[in-house]
Amino acid sequence: MNDDGSRLLAQLAFLREVDRLKTVLRRTRLMDGSRQENSAEHSWHIALAAMVLAEHSNMTVDLGRVIKMLLMHDIVEIDAGDTFAYDMAGKASQAERENLAAARLFGILPPDQAAEFLELWAEFEAGETAEAKFATALDRLIPVLQNAANEGGTWRAHGLHRGMVNTRLRPIGDGAAAVWAYVETVLDEAQALDYLAPEP
Amino acid sequence: MNDDGSRLLAQLAFLREVDRLKTVLRRTRLMDGSRQENSAEHSWHIALAAMVLAEHSNMTVDLGRVIKMLLMHDIVEIDAGDTFAYDMAGKASQAERENLAAARLFGILPPDQAAEFLELWAEFEAGETAEAKFATALDRLIPVLQNAANEGGTWRAHGLHRGMVNTRLRPIGDGAAAVWAYVETVLDEAQALDYLAPEP
Repeated sequence: MNDDGSRLLAQLAFLREVDRLKTVLRRTRLMDGSRQENSAEHSWHIALAAMVLAEHSNMTVDLGRVIKMLLMHDIVEIDAGDTFAYDMAGKASQAERENLAAARLFGILPPDQAAEFLELWAEFEAGETAEAKFATALDRLIPVLQNAANEGGTWRAHGLHRGMVNTRLRPIGDGAAAVWAYVETVLDEAQALDYLAPEP
Repeated sequence: MNDDGSRLLAQLAFLREVDRLKTVLRRTRLMDGSRQENSAEHSWHIALAAMVLAEHSNMTVDLGRVIKMLLMHDIVEIDAGDTFAYDMAGKASQAERENLAAARLFGILPPDQAAEFLELWAEFEAGETAEAKFATALDRLIPVLQNAANEGGTWRAHGLHRGMVNTRLRPIGDGAAAVWAYVETVLDEAQALDYLAPEP
């Protein structure tokens, strides 16, 4: 097979492999509470959120780059699993597991694309560019809406208090201040309903 | 609440509503055969495919527009359901059901965004622009990979023959000739394995 053919085969092998992201379960449940969400459908939801909420980014962003970042940033979970946001032991080993996963999974692609994906993923993880900040805000926003719709969802299931949740969600404000202002009203309501534990 | 606030509330109401796309099941199964795929995770997969396969588009495309189209084009299924590609009775009423669905669902957004989404969706459905042709090619490609991985999947379950499948899949060639050449080899193999019925 010629070079173009083997290039296409590598790309299709990658697209077959990433199908497995549909079987990686997150802690968060769908808005209707019917089941846990998987990381592929979550990635779709936040990429769509970028389309809809772009105007609220604190900084001007390249929307295409934000969307690409959101579509690919969870792929490492195929090997590394989804680490629950408040699992501090899991967090400690997360970076190492995810680096190995990124090398293997993006390495299925032709080398130029593997490099592009690694760069996009590293940019998201570093959280320093305008695009990474806005992408992170969206990644943290949607689970807030899901937990609020599910009588507290993972907040209540894990007995989280407002301070812990604030710390986890504060990057929403770094990416999109108006969205953070709204999220604070949701958290106030969640606290009033005892979905969030009082400060210890 | 001021204008900006009500605008954000409309956008978030839309993002809550579209969560339901995760519960719309397609006929196609995951690559591992474990369960049917839902339309949200399918939308993620084809948007990612656009990132990976962009170079194979027959015509130069605005990749950002292709990805947006792929992320939103199935949302109408929340109201209209997924119509199986080879269900001719369902096909007859599909356009009407989907138009109503588009009006209701995109109508949750602020008017300027509702118009933008309707336009993107109509462009995809018309299939005439370079972006729509490439997007359609990707939408039809991934189920080929899934059926081939699932011992014929929906082809075999519904006793489809090569001619019907060729007609359905030919738009892959209109969007990406090199990808279509590959798909033809997959179909040849599927026919040799009796995953596809012989011509009647």
